Amino acid sequence: MARINDNYLKLKAGYLFPEIGRRVKAFCDAHPAAPVIRLGIGDVTEPLPPAIVQAMHDAVDEMARRETFRGYGPEQGYDFLREAIAENDYRARGAEVSADEVFVSDGSKCDTGNILDIFGTGNVIAVTDPVYPVYVDTNVMAGNTGDADDSGRYGGLVYIPVTAENDFTPALPDRPVDLIYLCYPNNPTGTVATRATLQAWVDFARAHGSIIFFDAAYESYITDPAIPHSIYEIDGAREVAIEFRSFSKSAGFTGTRCAFTVVPKELMGTTASGERRAVHPLWNRRQSTKFNGVPYVIQRAAAAAYSRDGAAQVRALIDFYLDNARLLREGLTKAGLTVYGGVNAPYVWVKTPGSTTSWDFFDQLLAVANLVGTPGSGFGASGEGYFRLSAFNSRANIEEAVTRLQKFVG
Amino acid sequence: MARINDNYLKLKAGYLFPEIGRRVKAFCDAHPAAPVIRLGIGDVTEPLPPAIVQAMHDAVDEMARRETFRGYGPEQGYDFLREAIAENDYRARGAEVSADEVFVSDGSKCDTGNILDIFGTGNVIAVTDPVYPVYVDTNVMAGNTGDADDSGRYGGLVYIPVTAENDFTPALPDRPVDLIYLCYPNNPTGTVATRATLQAWVDFARAHGSIIFFDAAYESYITDPAIPHSIYEIDGAREVAIEFRSFSKSAGFTGTRCAFTVVPKELMGTTASGERRAVHPLWNRRQSTKFNGVPYVIQRAAAAAYSRDGAAQVRALIDFYLDNARLLREGLTKAGLTVYGGVNAPYVWVKTPGSTTSWDFFDQLLAVANLVGTPGSGFGASGEGYFRLSAFNSRANIEEAVTRLQKFVG
Repeated sequence: MARINDNYLKLKAGYLFPEIGRRVKAFCDAHPAAPVIRLGIGDVTEPLPPAIVQAMHDAVDEMARRETFRGYGPEQGYDFLREAIAENDYRARGAEVSADEVFVSDGSKCDTGNILDIFGTGNVIAVTDPVYPVYVDTNVMAGNTGDADDSGRYGGLVYIPVTAENDFTPALPDRPVDLIYLCYPNNPTGTVATRATLQAWVDFARAHGSIIFFDAAYESYITDPAIPHSIYEIDGAREVAIEFRSFSKSAGFTGTRCAFTVVPKELMGTTASGERRAVHPLWNRRQSTKFNGVPYVIQRAAAAAYSRDGAAQVRALIDFYLDNARLLREGLTKAGLTVYGGVNAPYVWVKTPGSTTSWDFFDQLLAVANLVGTPGSGFGASGEGYFRLSAFNSRANIEEAVTRLQKFVG
Repeated sequence: MARINDNYLKLKAGYLFPEIGRRVKAFCDAHPAAPVIRLGIGDVTEPLPPAIVQAMHDAVDEMARRETFRGYGPEQGYDFLREAIAENDYRARGAEVSADEVFVSDGSKCDTGNILDIFGTGNVIAVTDPVYPVYVDTNVMAGNTGDADDSGRYGGLVYIPVTAENDFTPALPDRPVDLIYLCYPNNPTGTVATRATLQAWVDFARAHGSIIFFDAAYESYITDPAIPHSIYEIDGAREVAIEFRSFSKSAGFTGTRCAFTVVPKELMGTTASGERRAVHPLWNRRQSTKFNGVPYVIQRAAAAAYSRDGAAQVRALIDFYLDNARLLREGLTKAGLTVYGGVNAPYVWVKTPGSTTSWDFFDQLLAVANLVGTPGSGFGASGEGYFRLSAFNSRANIEEAVTRLQKFVG
């Protein structure tokens, strides 16, 4: 009898975004004329920059001629892209990363999920709360948790609250943990970690033999020059951290699919018998065996984000969304709401008024103002009483949303 | 202490194709002027068909305009592609598959590896021998095997020989097995399974509660009208089989990356407590959580393979490689070699002369004739004494290879 992975049965049925989709659909079916504006899911809305479009057309033409056609590429990514990443994203900021430590992939969601393949059973996992649900769900699937309780917290996971009470700075765990997920700039709160905070985590990981999974998918939104963009700007991080990055929110690649993972050669894990082993060859083997590389055309598109024109156009795209975030933040503050994030991130994290729950706020906002956001409690128990708004939209929609929000609150 | 997945340490160091690459490089470094022709790895060489190129350009232009830009798509693939697959690949052949049973992905290598995520521990795994190495290696990684013995066979796996002695028809296992990998047309032997053979496997799976992983990546090379293209042409298969297909070898997508997996809704697995559970929701959850869909541009490219012009151009591409296979087969037969495959598949499976081992044949062929093939023993112990030649090359190279092979053998 073919046995299924019983861990899947522990997963709660309603993943956040499908539930939002269900409620929005029910509302729209009942009110087909309602001018609904969606600031829920963090999906970009603006077209690909011209330099990237041109690079894709050129690469398609290469695929159309025998002399320049590309078949299987390196599973780890083409050198032209790995080199561009190592140079522009790391060495230019003084962080030591070599091209062969960069593994090009089709998404950070995939990478942050798949990374568990190379880690064993019995690891204690720490996540912040609220948290990007994929970190938790993939650990449930991998059997690294027990069942969920009524608040949605899974047994065996170490949840570290990040709320206004602790200034959104996660306290170091009060016990040893083995694998630690950190996401900065943070999804969903839009807050950032200072150099001192990150140094404390790296020092903790070094002291306990832990490994940090550092999700930097939003690093391009950092505007404060004092905030590190990469974990590798922190002393000692190469020995304890894997970093995930994506072109999704920088170059607008949510539907184009390119990301990468950095695994430093110094990073070590432990075998069952207590030996130390390098992690880099394990991830290389995983990717070589279970992945076949990103389409050539897409890798050329990603590389164009580092050209002079491409970089300027990508910067303009990010600045556009950051201006949206500023408009949201200022508008909501003016309306008397307490607002976090939105300075170094494309997300604004709003405290719901009084004791309104996240889902009640969602339902009211949809019904009265026809606005869709994301209930903070969907990201974890400590997200209750918060609400996430995404800055990914047209300027007109953002301005209209601010007007409606002010009227809704007022 | 972060614990690594110790199963990775069981993997043998030398994956087949890197070892071939190493030997070819050493030869080329020593003989830089040698006119080496590579018929080793099964990688296409001809450019993308014009209808597909045009579809990609059009899709890139859609991504360049706000009105037609696409962000996140459905993780399972766009309906336009799922519908085209269900209609053209299945319903047109009388096989019942609905669009929502089709999961679009970035490769069959990925899918055949990732599928193990949704199955539990303790399953007994059956593979043919010789076999595509990814099936074996991903089971090693998942902890479904013991250590390898001297012949490279892993403990716990059930190996089913397919050789000239049994006419390349795998015997049904002499014990119950839970997960069964079948690949037809077969990589590496280039042989096919008759309807009766497949029916026997489906009946076996139904009798034992097993699930068949049916890899049909080469189905478009079938020329014999009596040979099934899909496992779903077999009675009862929807209850016991998952099918994997790819655009790599049909439309020339090895560097463009698109494939799909079919999971019928009737297919059930068993929980630890003995309950029967549908597999479709598990794979849907796996893909929704750990995958973010194939690039929009690539899905449009794949869909163009079903347009009238696209289908004709793809057919011409396949026929070109099939002609290459015929030239190889006929040329080698004329030279006195015993040859299998190459009629319904792009691979020719050659018996090495006398008692020559696969790797000795490889080394001699490279040194004397400057030809690269793949040693049969690299695909498993029962592949010893065989050699794989790929028909993926230019006509001129195939003709030159035949001339050299005849001279080499003569």
